[in-house]
Amino acid sequence: MARRAAAGLLRRLGPLACEPQARGMSPTHYGTKNHGFSRFYLIQGRHHLYGSRTNVETDDTRQSAHMNFEVQKRSFSSAAAHIQRNPTYSVLNSNDVSYFKSVLGESSVVQDEDRVAVANVDWMGKYKGSSQLLLLPKSTTEVSKILSYCNSRRLAVVPQGGNTGLVGGSVPVHDEVIISLGGMNNIISFDNVNGILTCEAGCVLENLSSFVENKGFIMPLDLGAKGSCHIGGNISTNAGGLRFIRYGSLHGNVLGLEVVLANGTVLDMLTTLRKDNTGYDLKHLFIGSEGSLGVVTKVAILTPAKLPSTNVAFLSCNDYMSCQKLLLAAKRSLGEIVSAFEFMDRHCIDLAMKYLEGVQNPLPASPYNFYVLIETTGSDESYDKAKLEAFLLRSMEDGLVADGVIAQDISQASNFWRIREGISEASVKVGAVYKYDLSIPVEKLYDIVEEMRSRVGGMGEVLGYGHLGDGNLHLNILSSKYSDKILEQIEPFVYEWTSNQRGSISAEHGLGVMKAEKIHYSKSSEAVQLMGSIKKLLDPNSILNPYKVLPQSVL
Amino acid sequence: MARRAAAGLLRRLGPLACEPQARGMSPTHYGTKNHGFSRFYLIQGRHHLYGSRTNVETDDTRQSAHMNFEVQKRSFSSAAAHIQRNPTYSVLNSNDVSYFKSVLGESSVVQDEDRVAVANVDWMGKYKGSSQLLLLPKSTTEVSKILSYCNSRRLAVVPQGGNTGLVGGSVPVHDEVIISLGGMNNIISFDNVNGILTCEAGCVLENLSSFVENKGFIMPLDLGAKGSCHIGGNISTNAGGLRFIRYGSLHGNVLGLEVVLANGTVLDMLTTLRKDNTGYDLKHLFIGSEGSLGVVTKVAILTPAKLPSTNVAFLSCNDYMSCQKLLLAAKRSLGEIVSAFEFMDRHCIDLAMKYLEGVQNPLPASPYNFYVLIETTGSDESYDKAKLEAFLLRSMEDGLVADGVIAQDISQASNFWRIREGISEASVKVGAVYKYDLSIPVEKLYDIVEEMRSRVGGMGEVLGYGHLGDGNLHLNILSSKYSDKILEQIEPFVYEWTSNQRGSISAEHGLGVMKAEKIHYSKSSEAVQLMGSIKKLLDPNSILNPYKVLPQSVL
Repeated sequence: MARRAAAGLLRRLGPLACEPQARGMSPTHYGTKNHGFSRFYLIQGRHHLYGSRTNVETDDTRQSAHMNFEVQKRSFSSAAAHIQRNPTYSVLNSNDVSYFKSVLGESSVVQDEDRVAVANVDWMGKYKGSSQLLLLPKSTTEVSKILSYCNSRRLAVVPQGGNTGLVGGSVPVHDEVIISLGGMNNIISFDNVNGILTCEAGCVLENLSSFVENKGFIMPLDLGAKGSCHIGGNISTNAGGLRFIRYGSLHGNVLGLEVVLANGTVLDMLTTLRKDNTGYDLKHLFIGSEGSLGVVTKVAILTPAKLPSTNVAFLSCNDYMSCQKLLLAAKRSLGEIVSAFEFMDRHCIDLAMKYLEGVQNPLPASPYNFYVLIETTGSDESYDKAKLEAFLLRSMEDGLVADGVIAQDISQASNFWRIREGISEASVKVGAVYKYDLSIPVEKLYDIVEEMRSRVGGMGEVLGYGHLGDGNLHLNILSSKYSDKILEQIEPFVYEWTSNQRGSISAEHGLGVMKAEKIHYSKSSEAVQLMGSIKKLLDPNSILNPYKVLPQSVL
Repeated sequence: MARRAAAGLLRRLGPLACEPQARGMSPTHYGTKNHGFSRFYLIQGRHHLYGSRTNVETDDTRQSAHMNFEVQKRSFSSAAAHIQRNPTYSVLNSNDVSYFKSVLGESSVVQDEDRVAVANVDWMGKYKGSSQLLLLPKSTTEVSKILSYCNSRRLAVVPQGGNTGLVGGSVPVHDEVIISLGGMNNIISFDNVNGILTCEAGCVLENLSSFVENKGFIMPLDLGAKGSCHIGGNISTNAGGLRFIRYGSLHGNVLGLEVVLANGTVLDMLTTLRKDNTGYDLKHLFIGSEGSLGVVTKVAILTPAKLPSTNVAFLSCNDYMSCQKLLLAAKRSLGEIVSAFEFMDRHCIDLAMKYLEGVQNPLPASPYNFYVLIETTGSDESYDKAKLEAFLLRSMEDGLVADGVIAQDISQASNFWRIREGISEASVKVGAVYKYDLSIPVEKLYDIVEEMRSRVGGMGEVLGYGHLGDGNLHLNILSSKYSDKILEQIEPFVYEWTSNQRGSISAEHGLGVMKAEKIHYSKSSEAVQLMGSIKKLLDPNSILNPYKVLPQSVL
């Protein structure tokens, strides 16, 4: 009843609260073009209503990726082809297949060429292996038996979740046996006092989201690939995504794991406790190690309470410094309700307007250099709305925001997000696109975009956008076609520059096969050496997801 | 100016908003005794104003611990005495001392008996070593040289921070060389856009808090021991504390570490990035491993924005189920502003009223069985206040809360917190106290208290209290004096029961020397075995903090 009363209040007070004069503000505070802030709105089930929300860099929708298939192949396919097969691995034989059938049953041992072919290639068609066997275990015991056997036979394996990764981590490089976790998709339990979900690794993220949302909670992560990706894969790649700024990393949200080691040992760390300081917290070894240290089979994860109120604002800033200051101010004033803080430069907006159908710039086509999308999520519509509005008014008074609007309905909010998320889709329509996903300290984050612009000159167009709140830049260089001349201007400069800033050459996608040999740009040689030692300790025969994550030289 | 205006509004509207009739509520909704909710208040610098805030279980203040010195010795001192010195370790000689003097300088190599004696014993006087040497390095290079030398000479060492732990982890068991990090207490940098602090490991938590608060941020953790504990020690013990429910674990908040390994290798993982998926995230190995895998020398940590509005409510519930439901409702309705959710049973309140000077029960002395303290922290006083008030009114209507008050000034808030935090201090005044710090799924959390009450019967009084929001129970059994008869009723039952619930026998204090041999109650044998392998990999001569964390049998 209190909720309904509050909603009534919102409708009643809305127009008054948003009327500039009623707040003692001059209309000129509402931006240079007198747009004013529009009405707030309440979003429920945003992602479903908005259509396909996609993560940045996973923000190539599947459709656009398929359209771009030839381009991608042109750009990437040679990487895996240059890796020699490790001759110490055995070659699969009929006895092996018979053993797997005896353990899993006939139907879970797939040799059918078409079905195996699908599992051999990543969703973008960038990376393609030549495995002849796909295994579909249905239990931890079956995974254990598979690995124990493969370890003793020295058969290399690749664990596969939803196969939605971007760095070739989930497909074979050569003839590795593919172990798909898709058959292990049961929810085991849900603790609705603490919001703790326990489930098998093969559960699809979107299914888990629906499940916990029905209980009044949300998953602490959300990705564009959520309709396909598995929670086990999310954990193995330490997936970031759209809720990172609010709920943080999986290292903070995963409470427990069950993992099968290379030799078949089942490592039960499946606690559902928020606090447990008994010995080394081993589960962190398996979060983000891309299936190279063990196969995640079960997961316990903390799910935050679902909050009813969401607002989205689309703003322009005159310079990058204003974007930074706005971020700081938002953390101060909106701290506990900010759920997204995304930025785009002018080039991104121009591109989106040119190539995306049905998308409109909610702000006038003035020469603003930067745009920011802020989303808030909280427990009370009226309070959250007033907070955001007051914050934006102050930011305009302080000169941080040049102009801005707040979505007044789902359609407007959808349009705002569509601009941000459509940048990648729009960029591939230009022709060739060189994409980099970097973590850089926020104050330096835009420098690389400007430096790159000056290096590339007239040969291409440089876009900068990303999760400003997380220090995660997406740097795209667009050109009419791929050329070595442009590439020489980009690489290794982009990696070296990032390394000099102590940045990360892979903010959220992992290294996979694409960047395994480039790890030294972000990690010290002592650290890489220790990673190698840990790999050898946990997987002495190196059967788990070979050729990936670590450089071959340390193994 | 906006802030001041808002504060003015709060004062102006306060009385109206809190007048029951103005909200259409019957006065009977305000609790059985018609207390009504008092005015809200704004707390700034709460901890300083409240006097010594102490963490639970670290909630023995130093004063009470000293008063209780004899009792504690009676209870615990035999544990370390039973551990045999490992004969493979060398015995310190004059050449060693000369070497250390050549590296550190005379004044940083302490042999003075009195000064070494202080470092040999923990602050409670429970655990006492017989080291003859205290080293005070001032740089990572010096730590590296010390460890490299000790490793080659096979001299065992104990890294020591503020020496505020509760499980004997920071003092020698025998003659280990003590390496105090206290001389490494420089702040290296602060990124005030992202709120990222980089500092040396020997910085005292309270100094860091003051530093970042001046910049508009707060440390993500807060402990009773903050005036003495070091950030390096906090990380090495994965300290929990008062802000855990809001900001989560150090595994989520620590961004980077510099660690010196047993052989003197400096492992530079000191990134300040929120996102970095390049290889294994090794820093997690050193968070919570109690100095047994490496010595933390530098830290980069995420600090949340400091929010201006804090409110505290003190409530009673009729049964434990209501406490659980209230927690769930608070997560739903107050989700983003809850900063503490503590519970106490009736026995705790009775004890506090009996033994704590100047403390008053803010609720009438009715036979309520449970009490809950809720604190909120947010960015806007008026909105947060209205949110909390509405939530409490609903909770009363729903029957979850029997009675309750909200602090109207700092003195009242201080009184509320004093009750919660004084329980431990009050409990030691009874005579003997057996203390356990457990993580248990919330729905089962109070069962152990009731079972223990029935086991102990007339021999003692059983108290249950703790961080309900984190599933962290503090179980105290009070008696006039220690007796084996009571202990037999408590142990090993308390560990076995916790183990059966897949709970943790050490929620936030670590294992140290006190519970190293009890790890199997909370961890599987496969996990303990792997911990042992990792220990051997990183510290093959086992020189780092020996006899602790892991059972001797796995090393």
